[in-house]
Amino acid sequence: MLTHPVRRVLSRRLSVIKTKQSTRRCCSSSSIEDVDQAGTLLQLCVDRHYVSPGQPNVELFQRGMCCSYGPLGTELRRNLLDQWWHSVTGSRAQVFGLNTLSSSSSRDRAADGGGQLRMVESEHLKQLLDRQELSKEQLIQEVRMLLQRSPSVRTNLLQGALEQFVPSMELVNRKLPFGLAETGLCLQPSRGSGCPAEVTQTSLVWFCSPRTSSQWLDHWTRQRLRWWRKFARSPSDFSSSEVPEEELEEPASRGVRIIYHFPWGPESLETLWSRGNSELLHTHQGVRSKLQPRGGQKSIPHVVSVTGNMDRGMMAFLSNSLQQLKREDSKQRLQQRRVLKLHPVLAPVKVALDIGRGATVEMRRVCEGLLQEFLEANILAWPGYLDTAQTSMEQLNTKYDEMGVLFTVVIGENTLESGLLQVRSRDTTIKETMHISEIRNFLSRYISAADNI
Amino acid sequence: MLTHPVRRVLSRRLSVIKTKQSTRRCCSSSSIEDVDQAGTLLQLCVDRHYVSPGQPNVELFQRGMCCSYGPLGTELRRNLLDQWWHSVTGSRAQVFGLNTLSSSSSRDRAADGGGQLRMVESEHLKQLLDRQELSKEQLIQEVRMLLQRSPSVRTNLLQGALEQFVPSMELVNRKLPFGLAETGLCLQPSRGSGCPAEVTQTSLVWFCSPRTSSQWLDHWTRQRLRWWRKFARSPSDFSSSEVPEEELEEPASRGVRIIYHFPWGPESLETLWSRGNSELLHTHQGVRSKLQPRGGQKSIPHVVSVTGNMDRGMMAFLSNSLQQLKREDSKQRLQQRRVLKLHPVLAPVKVALDIGRGATVEMRRVCEGLLQEFLEANILAWPGYLDTAQTSMEQLNTKYDEMGVLFTVVIGENTLESGLLQVRSRDTTIKETMHISEIRNFLSRYISAADNI
Repeated sequence: MLTHPVRRVLSRRLSVIKTKQSTRRCCSSSSIEDVDQAGTLLQLCVDRHYVSPGQPNVELFQRGMCCSYGPLGTELRRNLLDQWWHSVTGSRAQVFGLNTLSSSSSRDRAADGGGQLRMVESEHLKQLLDRQELSKEQLIQEVRMLLQRSPSVRTNLLQGALEQFVPSMELVNRKLPFGLAETGLCLQPSRGSGCPAEVTQTSLVWFCSPRTSSQWLDHWTRQRLRWWRKFARSPSDFSSSEVPEEELEEPASRGVRIIYHFPWGPESLETLWSRGNSELLHTHQGVRSKLQPRGGQKSIPHVVSVTGNMDRGMMAFLSNSLQQLKREDSKQRLQQRRVLKLHPVLAPVKVALDIGRGATVEMRRVCEGLLQEFLEANILAWPGYLDTAQTSMEQLNTKYDEMGVLFTVVIGENTLESGLLQVRSRDTTIKETMHISEIRNFLSRYISAADNI
Repeated sequence: MLTHPVRRVLSRRLSVIKTKQSTRRCCSSSSIEDVDQAGTLLQLCVDRHYVSPGQPNVELFQRGMCCSYGPLGTELRRNLLDQWWHSVTGSRAQVFGLNTLSSSSSRDRAADGGGQLRMVESEHLKQLLDRQELSKEQLIQEVRMLLQRSPSVRTNLLQGALEQFVPSMELVNRKLPFGLAETGLCLQPSRGSGCPAEVTQTSLVWFCSPRTSSQWLDHWTRQRLRWWRKFARSPSDFSSSEVPEEELEEPASRGVRIIYHFPWGPESLETLWSRGNSELLHTHQGVRSKLQPRGGQKSIPHVVSVTGNMDRGMMAFLSNSLQQLKREDSKQRLQQRRVLKLHPVLAPVKVALDIGRGATVEMRRVCEGLLQEFLEANILAWPGYLDTAQTSMEQLNTKYDEMGVLFTVVIGENTLESGLLQVRSRDTTIKETMHISEIRNFLSRYISAADNI
């Protein structure tokens, strides 16, 4: 598999990362060049509130697992999942959203690792262990039964969609093709490594006639690759590749991976399998009559699954959008400028609001009014004006560029008189003067224009 | 507590519900009156793709737990969570979003039921039980250690926010007040009843100075009640009530519940607690210096928690929006018209697209084009034109009214020539003629106008 050698390389590199916040302001131009790209990226994610601090947490993120996200990471994940949802449920009339349970006691988990992870009520198990009257054999028997009764936790979203196939057929008048989309947390068994980890999965399960399944696999591969590339700064880092025959997992007859080429090597973001119909039949105890579509077709639908890892997807977009530029600062020292050029639709913070020199109560009020206006228009604004520490404009720009903030608005004394404010663009670094009444529409138009390209 | 007697009553009522789809079309006016309100609501939720069929699943929903949702339920939950998120993170500059892990092996779960639920790797436990060489005492010891190592599952979102207090303080320059918002699944231990259940929780954890905590509790109570009422058809069914002193849970000094008056009695949707600072101190091992805000204040912040159950919230809005009207049909039989008058912002399907008599390939193409246009504008449209079964317009309207679809658009032969189509409103039942080029903007304006009232 793709992940193992990569993980080892990254683990070594990760050791250079200090997650302590205090180190973040003293990077000189020379030390930055020493730290490798993966380290820089992860450090920046912690410093700029994408990922919560702490070595174990950063390691989860770096392994492509769900971790504790800070406010910016939380918004980026929301935006990414929203875009995935609209792209998949909106791409065809026959895709329907779904929500299934993440744990289940009754469910047949055959397609799901056979119930490897079970949710056990700790008190019940402890009470069993305390029952002195039980012989060893009786105890073993009781523990087995407790385990059997305990709900198993899902490791993917496929099984839930297979179970909902029959009621969902009613939605489309029992006609093929159609699909079921779902996003949610899944657990990955540790495979001996210690602790199971969570993954934010996306899943489209597509039901189609047997003879079209390979074409549909191609269709969805194109659709998904286009989607990943739409938000990329450098689209060619995203590619698709057919899974070699020797790596095919039962019962798949074909597979395609959407790959991102991280600086440390390729990793898989989304996987498409043409799975045949054995799992569908198994889930419904082989009752073929329930599964047959309307019309002359007597064949059982085939399943194409499209499964994504959005935690790794986040890291791909963060990595892809990080631009490092060398430039001289005002004292002619060589400096590294780091900009997180996230796509305008994905960028968690669209605009930061700050106050120039000579902050007054009135200027603060203008900021608060403007912030409210942005929030009402669903434009996430960063309340920079709350931070009253003395910071130069240059430091502020560095901070916002690393956060990936699209625009910085500075309210000056001037604004109170003329209504004019300064707007700096992350991507061009150009500062424009704009009237306060125009800024909201300007931002809305900018974001929706970027969405429609 | 509020839920127990209610649950018993509902369980009895639930027995009248048939979840088989086949019964849904033969309800005559007299039999409808016999079925009670709760039964009618749950049956409608199953028939109209809010809740997946199956008795155990409907029971989960009726108990205010997360269940397997159909496409309409999935969208309604999305809309509800989105609105909650924007309302809470957008209400003040100092509220930040957060995402914490749902399971954790290292976490201190003191404020979280003390790790009652543990995720156990079934294979590991089975291997232990198979080790014949172990004595009973050794076996007990090994099982205890396995349990200890297994990650515990969260039962609420509070603990994660308390843990993130220290890094989050950096966001606000170590100044109070500020808040951390999160939504996600939490597990509820079964308390002996059998199986733990999932709940879609919303959580705002608000940190403020000790002397202002009671005022903030009042502030957030007003804010939350206003939010619930904003989307209600009958706002007075939502109310707030102070938790009586004898029901206060440690360490809370005050509590308020947001209550919905279901036809079968009141149930709590969201609970606000003024919790003091003991849990915050405990989470950070009593290291007061880490927890103190900037400025002269040496006191440890107090915590106000706002915890909602959005699965029960969904049921509240579904129940609140269900209108039952008696009327005579075209053959002068008394009929019951049921309309799910969900708020335009919450309604999962905004518009249904259908074809009138004499459907042709061209009319279908018009539908497909229009559907695409709606999807691009993020207006969820229902592809009614895919259903080619013979249905009268009256039956269609009944179906869409029960789904809560805001508008039904019918493309006729006429549309191909003149570009005119018929638009029927769910709320007024009035049919208007509109040009095809106007419909998208009309819908966008209608929804955003309803949002801003």
